[in-house]
Amino acid sequence: MTQPQLGLEGVFVEAEMPCLIRRSGMADWRDGAVQILDRRQLPLTVTYLTCKTVAEVATAIRDMVIQGAYSISIAAGYGLALAARAPTTPHILDAAAAQLIATRPTGLALRRVVGAALAAGKAALAAGSDPSKAIVDLVDRAAAALARQGYETGRNACDLLPDGATILTHCFPDRSYAYLLLEAKRQGKNLTVICSETRPYLQGARLTALCATELGFATKVITDGMGGYLMRAGVIDYFITAADRVCMDGTVCNKVGSYQYALAAADTGRPYFVLRQSGPDLESATEKDITVEMRDGEEVVNFMGQRTAPLAAKGLYPTFDIIPPRLISKIVTDRGVFAPSLIGTYPMAEKKVFDTIA
Amino acid sequence: MTQPQLGLEGVFVEAEMPCLIRRSGMADWRDGAVQILDRRQLPLTVTYLTCKTVAEVATAIRDMVIQGAYSISIAAGYGLALAARAPTTPHILDAAAAQLIATRPTGLALRRVVGAALAAGKAALAAGSDPSKAIVDLVDRAAAALARQGYETGRNACDLLPDGATILTHCFPDRSYAYLLLEAKRQGKNLTVICSETRPYLQGARLTALCATELGFATKVITDGMGGYLMRAGVIDYFITAADRVCMDGTVCNKVGSYQYALAAADTGRPYFVLRQSGPDLESATEKDITVEMRDGEEVVNFMGQRTAPLAAKGLYPTFDIIPPRLISKIVTDRGVFAPSLIGTYPMAEKKVFDTIA
Repeated sequence: MTQPQLGLEGVFVEAEMPCLIRRSGMADWRDGAVQILDRRQLPLTVTYLTCKTVAEVATAIRDMVIQGAYSISIAAGYGLALAARAPTTPHILDAAAAQLIATRPTGLALRRVVGAALAAGKAALAAGSDPSKAIVDLVDRAAAALARQGYETGRNACDLLPDGATILTHCFPDRSYAYLLLEAKRQGKNLTVICSETRPYLQGARLTALCATELGFATKVITDGMGGYLMRAGVIDYFITAADRVCMDGTVCNKVGSYQYALAAADTGRPYFVLRQSGPDLESATEKDITVEMRDGEEVVNFMGQRTAPLAAKGLYPTFDIIPPRLISKIVTDRGVFAPSLIGTYPMAEKKVFDTIA
Repeated sequence: MTQPQLGLEGVFVEAEMPCLIRRSGMADWRDGAVQILDRRQLPLTVTYLTCKTVAEVATAIRDMVIQGAYSISIAAGYGLALAARAPTTPHILDAAAAQLIATRPTGLALRRVVGAALAAGKAALAAGSDPSKAIVDLVDRAAAALARQGYETGRNACDLLPDGATILTHCFPDRSYAYLLLEAKRQGKNLTVICSETRPYLQGARLTALCATELGFATKVITDGMGGYLMRAGVIDYFITAADRVCMDGTVCNKVGSYQYALAAADTGRPYFVLRQSGPDLESATEKDITVEMRDGEEVVNFMGQRTAPLAAKGLYPTFDIIPPRLISKIVTDRGVFAPSLIGTYPMAEKKVFDTIA
């Protein structure tokens, strides 16, 4: 009798996990190609995209086939392995890394994983070993380390929530949130999950709601303007998001829309917990160090191929919000729970290699 | 040479007005039926629905063919005239009025116009004159009075805005806002109009953006989560909405999503102006007197006929927000501009008959 396969984090049985945090649900290296679950088609259709070139991986990331700071970093890391197949050169690897890093400018995990993969590939090339294999090995270990971090973070967050709590999330808070739900299920904590749909891509309606329903939690979907009402009405107890970046002063960068919800949480006295598995970014002192990505406004004025606004109107699409530390109750990491003002005390120095690449 | 037809407000040439505030763009009595511009099809398709029964009018209002507190009140008023055609009785009129009032519970204009139309119809019936004609005459006068109020309100709001201002709106703030834009155009004030798309029905993307582009203003559409970012980034100077109801203590009820934007405006020091053409509601002392309509959650988890969320997830749809007076800079009415705390001084007693029905 074979043992059921455990998830990348080494704790839960993979078959019982939400599809988005299984190996196949992020990005995986399969038969010399990068296989990516197409998140744009979820929740009603499960399709996988097989990318055989760096350009295909870059397009998949830019077009939101995969999203989330950590997931795209793994996809991009495996993407670099495609450029490392023979015949390759350091120059080819440099160009591929630049192409992958340019896909999404705001998060840091992407450039760190790609940077580490580039270094591993070049080292292998110099040593006469297989650079593609070296990169895949590195990204495999990074994926496992990130999953473990996500699990620790989700478990720490679960400890903050009482049985029966109703939690609002915005966008898809990725792995840490899925592990929070998995851990709550294991502990028998009954949560009600409210998902803000998150226009224009509807990651909340499609991805977060999928995770929550797969695990059997009561799951409700609202539009991005409704969270404030429900906090005021006493329906929502906690607001929880991920973070695409955390500055050393406790400022958080996350999906646009998070700032308004953070204001509503503060105004109504609901705690706002930010999940950030790898802690703050040493190179971001304050919000001045963050570049907020502006995406194509056409994504706002079209929905599922149908134009919504008059042709003479232009869409405007700032991707991320900056949330000042005064609006945040706690930042939850793999190494514990921090007041925003104390996030600089996160034990960065103790962290192992793959903890720090993201 | 014939004079060009003036709008219902008696100031602008109707052909130069945004389609939504022309006679044909609200609801009109045509050839013994109620003609309603189907707002769900805008901005790309202009279709009119001809309602020949009270049930058809009620369905049109409930299904959002027409929306906005004042516009639906006019549609419902004409709807009652359908029930007043021979043979009719006071009992038939009562039942029809109840059916029309039940369509949307939150706004007061609807029940007031229908109530006044019911009284006019019964009086005509008792006097042996044509009750349907009496109702149509009353609703015609109400529509003109409401248009004039909207114009006065829009003109007062325009006075508050400097040339070059960028204004954010949420949902479609109806007539008063369209008159604000018309008046700004006449005065040569250059405004940039940012429209929050307003899920689930996209009234901002479809209706507000249509008004603004018809008048030639630079018009940008954002999702409902983006206004806070743009206020913080200094792109938006003013936040402006309508109000479905204003309480005597200055509390405002408006489209869900308004509360979050009001919080962002307060947090970033941007003024928030509320357009409320008829002033406060005498019978609403505080928010305790407001019933917030809960609509069918299915409207949230489907988008243009396509399911967005997993089938196991439920949609949740509170329709309106309650915005406390501390978050509001000014309430702009047909009779001047008020601090929220002073809205009780609105000169209600001086108002003429059709000013007070809504």
